Amino acid sequence: MTHRWFSDRVAAFDSSGIRKVFDLASKLDDPINLSIGQPDFDVPDEIKQAAIDAIRTGKNGYSLTQGMPVLLDPLQAHVDASLGHDDRKVFVTSGTSGGLVLAIMTLVNPGDEVIVFDPYFVMYPALVALAGGKCVYVDTYPDFRVDIERLRDAITPRTKVILLNSPANPTGVVATPAETRAVAELAAERDIALISDEIYREFCHEPFASAAEFNDQTIVIEGFSKTYAMTGWRVGYAHGPTEVIEAMTRMQQYSFVCAPQPLQWGAAAADRVDMSGHVAEYRQKRDVFVGGINDLYDVVTPGGAFYAFVGAPWGTATEFVAEAIANNLLIIPGKVFSHRDTHFRVSYAASDQTIRRGIDVLRRLHSDGN
Amino acid sequence: MTHRWFSDRVAAFDSSGIRKVFDLASKLDDPINLSIGQPDFDVPDEIKQAAIDAIRTGKNGYSLTQGMPVLLDPLQAHVDASLGHDDRKVFVTSGTSGGLVLAIMTLVNPGDEVIVFDPYFVMYPALVALAGGKCVYVDTYPDFRVDIERLRDAITPRTKVILLNSPANPTGVVATPAETRAVAELAAERDIALISDEIYREFCHEPFASAAEFNDQTIVIEGFSKTYAMTGWRVGYAHGPTEVIEAMTRMQQYSFVCAPQPLQWGAAAADRVDMSGHVAEYRQKRDVFVGGINDLYDVVTPGGAFYAFVGAPWGTATEFVAEAIANNLLIIPGKVFSHRDTHFRVSYAASDQTIRRGIDVLRRLHSDGN
Repeated sequence: MTHRWFSDRVAAFDSSGIRKVFDLASKLDDPINLSIGQPDFDVPDEIKQAAIDAIRTGKNGYSLTQGMPVLLDPLQAHVDASLGHDDRKVFVTSGTSGGLVLAIMTLVNPGDEVIVFDPYFVMYPALVALAGGKCVYVDTYPDFRVDIERLRDAITPRTKVILLNSPANPTGVVATPAETRAVAELAAERDIALISDEIYREFCHEPFASAAEFNDQTIVIEGFSKTYAMTGWRVGYAHGPTEVIEAMTRMQQYSFVCAPQPLQWGAAAADRVDMSGHVAEYRQKRDVFVGGINDLYDVVTPGGAFYAFVGAPWGTATEFVAEAIANNLLIIPGKVFSHRDTHFRVSYAASDQTIRRGIDVLRRLHSDGN
Repeated sequence: MTHRWFSDRVAAFDSSGIRKVFDLASKLDDPINLSIGQPDFDVPDEIKQAAIDAIRTGKNGYSLTQGMPVLLDPLQAHVDASLGHDDRKVFVTSGTSGGLVLAIMTLVNPGDEVIVFDPYFVMYPALVALAGGKCVYVDTYPDFRVDIERLRDAITPRTKVILLNSPANPTGVVATPAETRAVAELAAERDIALISDEIYREFCHEPFASAAEFNDQTIVIEGFSKTYAMTGWRVGYAHGPTEVIEAMTRMQQYSFVCAPQPLQWGAAAADRVDMSGHVAEYRQKRDVFVGGINDLYDVVTPGGAFYAFVGAPWGTATEFVAEAIANNLLIIPGKVFSHRDTHFRVSYAASDQTIRRGIDVLRRLHSDGN
């Protein structure tokens, strides 16, 4: 990390936390893998077929920067119908990560502050560092809910962006509409850009409201990756005020260029696919997992996504996770997502059998500590 | 461009030059299109089939950050065999643009200088601005060749990177091995990072040498997009000293995430496809185009890529291109790629019929100016 040629921002891209877990994991034969941030089902056939047809029929060249009309136009119509804003434009991004990178690079100058709720999606601090910005963390322990007064206290004259993620990775917590409204209105009142990362909104078992419903300047980051199991396709979308989206699109032209064209054609078939069966199934998986450990473990029942953030019953979370991996169970220490080292992330995007095996190990490890 | 929320770097992403051309073009019915930066053939069937098989068989989730072994391992073997460096690592990027973004963000601090030869690929100044760096331009008119003394004069204590592109966009000029060697050795002598953008190296009709042959610290940016007509697939690769490539890969993990997985499987079939027929065909197209205008126009015969950079016979290049578009011929004014407004870019990646029609218009426009 100290090559004489490196820019200062390189230092922020230390992936050693997660890498250490995967290094340990690579030595396991048949791990009980509850670490994966993607669904355990495959892309639905209709979407696959649409992508295959696109490849076959020569839709392989550059896409329009803002996305292919086959995908973009229905998304714009959907956003217009659901939010009814006069001035809201959609564009297609290279996954939600692409949307996040472009939003941050468009808004954040070196030295600007970005408010991030802790625990946070592992990418956020790195993204802010990419722009030379500074993360200001708002602690949400122990219930992982937004405390609006803590948020208000964190705002300074340098605050440029608030980054909201609901349903959240790594906690699975869904902000109530009232909580989201409070954040959205505070951002509007203080003229701070609000980026709402809604990648998990389809996996949601509680009332959900987008921050854009309460603040028409909100920049919403959305994707297909999690809902349709196409995390490797790199197709997402973002919407927000026209001027902001046009700046992000211009920046996309000279960085990401465009989302993969044939896979955009695939994503365009997504609105013909009903995923409610999978969502119901993931709700059941959640109930099985949480019900399997919550007599022993401190866990906030997740309202969405497919994660639970569980308190380590003894030691630091890093120590506990090392012991879990020694027992063939792959989970992620909370330090990767937080300044605290007290919890671990479980992904229940796994087979019921794997979840049951994971519960067994966790119950056993709990007793070991006593 | 003046939204109160925008970061300073937004100002560098003004795509108005090219957009103006395409706005004019969108009003044309059946334009003679010599503006396109991608081949006029489709992706070879074997590559398509490999991508389709990958989609079908569920290779749709996240790729390993550094790329899938099916693609990465043969690339590493090829680079090892051709360069024989002890310490050279490959990783798979989201197109060559992805490799360029990561290289610049890894190397350039705000205020650092990046030397770019003028004319340049349109993306370079925007890329450098993304990192907060400063472009220092080395003029290569009238023959678009590197003058090593001019390069030496442009180096300052803040010079961090030299960006070399051969075969070049927009001129089609191929640096001789001696020229490339001089640049590579100067970079090594002054301990400046050398990024060699070799995206067009397969479309080359003259002796070509990679800068990495003369300077083992060179960061090489390569792709499949142009050679195999998969510009919309967003798969490329980069190689360089291990420490640099590992830093770029870590940064990829939190920005691009990975190149699209199923399309990596497609690209992995590329080494079974012989493109020499297409390359020979493009050489013929070059000869037809250059031979069709070089009695009237000032044009350096391109040694590679599929562009020619032609002097406007009257007025500024912007004025001449406006007149060409009024005559149904779509070309790009040189100002988009340069600080001078004297030339225009022609892409001969078009059907022979289109090239002939383009020649006719250019010959007519030349007379009009007299």
